[in-house]
Amino acid sequence: MASSLLTRQLAISLQQNLRLAAPGSRYVSKTATKTVSEFEYDAPSMKTAVPGPKSQELLRQLGEIQNVGAIHFFCNYEESRGNYLVDVDGNRMLDVYTQISSIPIGYNHPALIKVMTNPNNVSAFVNRPALGILPPENFPEKLFESLLSIAPSGMNRVQTMACGSCSNENAFKSMFIWYRNKERGYASPSEQEVGTCMINQSPGCPDLSILSFMGAFHGRTMGCLATTHSKAIHKLDIPSFDWPIAPFPKLQYPLEEFVRENAQEEARCLEEVEDLIVKWRQKRKPVAGIVIEPIQAEGGDNHASPDFFIKLRNIARKHGCAFHVDEVQTGGGTTGKFWAHEHWGLDDPADIVSFSKKLLTGGYYHRDELQPDKPYRIFNTWMGDPSKNLFLSEVLNVIRRENLLEEVTRSGKALLQGLYSLQTQYPHILSRARGQGTFCAIDACSDATRDSIMLKARNKGLFMGSCGEKTIRFRPALVFKEYHVHQLLNILNDILAEHK
Amino acid sequence: MASSLLTRQLAISLQQNLRLAAPGSRYVSKTATKTVSEFEYDAPSMKTAVPGPKSQELLRQLGEIQNVGAIHFFCNYEESRGNYLVDVDGNRMLDVYTQISSIPIGYNHPALIKVMTNPNNVSAFVNRPALGILPPENFPEKLFESLLSIAPSGMNRVQTMACGSCSNENAFKSMFIWYRNKERGYASPSEQEVGTCMINQSPGCPDLSILSFMGAFHGRTMGCLATTHSKAIHKLDIPSFDWPIAPFPKLQYPLEEFVRENAQEEARCLEEVEDLIVKWRQKRKPVAGIVIEPIQAEGGDNHASPDFFIKLRNIARKHGCAFHVDEVQTGGGTTGKFWAHEHWGLDDPADIVSFSKKLLTGGYYHRDELQPDKPYRIFNTWMGDPSKNLFLSEVLNVIRRENLLEEVTRSGKALLQGLYSLQTQYPHILSRARGQGTFCAIDACSDATRDSIMLKARNKGLFMGSCGEKTIRFRPALVFKEYHVHQLLNILNDILAEHK
Repeated sequence: MASSLLTRQLAISLQQNLRLAAPGSRYVSKTATKTVSEFEYDAPSMKTAVPGPKSQELLRQLGEIQNVGAIHFFCNYEESRGNYLVDVDGNRMLDVYTQISSIPIGYNHPALIKVMTNPNNVSAFVNRPALGILPPENFPEKLFESLLSIAPSGMNRVQTMACGSCSNENAFKSMFIWYRNKERGYASPSEQEVGTCMINQSPGCPDLSILSFMGAFHGRTMGCLATTHSKAIHKLDIPSFDWPIAPFPKLQYPLEEFVRENAQEEARCLEEVEDLIVKWRQKRKPVAGIVIEPIQAEGGDNHASPDFFIKLRNIARKHGCAFHVDEVQTGGGTTGKFWAHEHWGLDDPADIVSFSKKLLTGGYYHRDELQPDKPYRIFNTWMGDPSKNLFLSEVLNVIRRENLLEEVTRSGKALLQGLYSLQTQYPHILSRARGQGTFCAIDACSDATRDSIMLKARNKGLFMGSCGEKTIRFRPALVFKEYHVHQLLNILNDILAEHK
Repeated sequence: MASSLLTRQLAISLQQNLRLAAPGSRYVSKTATKTVSEFEYDAPSMKTAVPGPKSQELLRQLGEIQNVGAIHFFCNYEESRGNYLVDVDGNRMLDVYTQISSIPIGYNHPALIKVMTNPNNVSAFVNRPALGILPPENFPEKLFESLLSIAPSGMNRVQTMACGSCSNENAFKSMFIWYRNKERGYASPSEQEVGTCMINQSPGCPDLSILSFMGAFHGRTMGCLATTHSKAIHKLDIPSFDWPIAPFPKLQYPLEEFVRENAQEEARCLEEVEDLIVKWRQKRKPVAGIVIEPIQAEGGDNHASPDFFIKLRNIARKHGCAFHVDEVQTGGGTTGKFWAHEHWGLDDPADIVSFSKKLLTGGYYHRDELQPDKPYRIFNTWMGDPSKNLFLSEVLNVIRRENLLEEVTRSGKALLQGLYSLQTQYPHILSRARGQGTFCAIDACSDATRDSIMLKARNKGLFMGSCGEKTIRFRPALVFKEYHVHQLLNILNDILAEHK
């Protein structure tokens, strides 16, 4: 395995020397010099078509034990750096998908390597505790300096979990418990409830529901999956719950140009939400909570206005439903604020906010009253992973030190402007450019065209993601600078110019 | 933070010297000298009642942000070693619960620390990939040398997941997909199926079920929770599915003495299983799969005979249901074989075997035909964590090198014999000693007595777990030797002798 770059860097880092003596075309970014020395390649560099021969051989091997249909190529993570992902055939790509939006500050950031080489941290990696019963000494301190330091407004409580789906599942459970406790006036459950819950029957397992939106993605475990409605392949053949599904606004872009039309569309959706809440109450499957993404990601990068979310939050309050904002993909700084819901300007934006991906650990924040009344109601063996909290602490330090939220806002503006230019230049191919921060997207005229553009881009050294039916989604790391925006736009422009 | 021991060891390890110069009462275990040098304390050592003042202060801090009702005490993992868990007040306990049975080879095993200090491994910790789309170069190799090297008989395929619940959720989904593909003759889904699944309706989201057993524990996400029936606190207030629940045999112990009675009880349960399968087929909620633990753990350490499982496996086959063996707690060597189902002696023990805990990563093995027909049907962002696979590879090396399965069998025999003696000596307090390997348990006469014994033991330096209504469960690491068994029995004996 080609691990030379990292091994060398580790050696150097141990010598307290951050300069890389490695050969090859690398540059020190200008903005970075004033903060942390950042070593990165200067451009993509392609040696084979992707997937190359080595990736194809590994695909064959892995195909013997897993379905490999979703694999793009195999990666050399040791040689990857910052915004550049290197594959096993030596191809170096500008990565604006970043492991489905889950790499916060680029590959092999020196600050994270330092976490690994700090002897005080070894124990956190080697001895994974059952956090719910035997937490390590520094657990409260690490939570305060990491997750609590970025807690959404109005929320002082946080529960870590191992992944995004588990986070949403447990957030749903917290909403159900909260709702039933309210219904029974905070009295102890009846004997009948205790008895029936053991055999999956009402009233112990009540017919409560979660209201979700068409196009939503909240995960793939069975509770989450009942609120996910982005693609049939996720849901086909899996039993589900009869829960209400409201329309998500289908807005016209750019938002500034369609204010009136979009407001009408949002009003229509909100009306439907209230109708569904009433209808499901009549069906005796009352809505305990509403779950929504600030920007529908997997479903096609669908935006809605702050006004929509503010009104939705009020509808939840009016009907006694908990309001759960799923920031698994939007959280972590990619919209230019740490949480996308900050753009709504509310002091009390939600009852629950879930996260994962760029935060490296899953989990959710919640208001005090959403805390379960008893231990072991929200529980599992690991309840997260303290070694991920160590990395998160350091990621937050880097975000602050390097002013990465400002960088994201700056790069995001340049990216969106560039996408506007491209769709003006190629109106028969591209439309509906949209975005907040670097959380940007653009539609192709068909899914076939979208897929073709993406494959061509990959072979020219630009790795992007897709979502919805015919959308390209951009999910770069927070260290994505204007310099990288121009690289991205140049490659896209070349492809579009050649496109028939 | 008192990290001196580990820091020193790391420094020493980097100098290629495995001998500890640390002060304090430690000993080199006799069996270990012939394999890997193993440094461990020689006995418990108590300084305060547990939780001590430091733990209490940390509890107060953490209580501001989480429900801390399940926390026993805070730990100093840096100073913990082998079978001994050290808390923040300097109390050193013999740990036979091992983070809810999830620490395979004890605390701070030198082999695992070496994994951390190998520069070639840094990248796997720092860059967590989206394994389903962009795996690292060594991913197939690491799977073959770790998980595939211990694959259950008849299973060549494995899917990693982040935790036990996610493993079972996705195993259930695989069974549903497999079942529906059979039903539709492997044809493409109809337009109606594709359309209805998006809104949670049949036939796209079919009314299929999973048959589970009373007393079972398969996790707490909503699919898993519908098959979990061990304690009301897990299930109360959470909506569920109308799925069939069969009785699990209630056997008399020791098993050898009640062969005839137990066989009758098992026959009764198996008859009920077949009745339920027929009944749920008539209800139009056919059973796609049966899920069962080889030993019900959380539900009270309930055993059944190999004959029971062999017959159950045949019933599943006869009715066209998939057979899913949940080895999340029983797997990893604790019963004296790597998988508990190996004790059944079957070449084709199951269609799916799920794991987590001691394997450090979640996941499941499955037979070829249980593999989903298309990509993205079983999928999520991380699909496991390659850094856990690195540790698992090394754990398996240690198990082989140090013959730990033999050790477990030897220690387990000594432990069970000791428990038999104790229940003979204290028949008014203890009964129903049972176990396989070191996966042992014993019942107290009441839950209050059980809890009282456990608290007294903790204050004498023995940390045990509970399960079921009044059961003490023993879940030591695989490095638990006869020497430790005697320590455990001595402490228990002292407490029982004092017990009124």
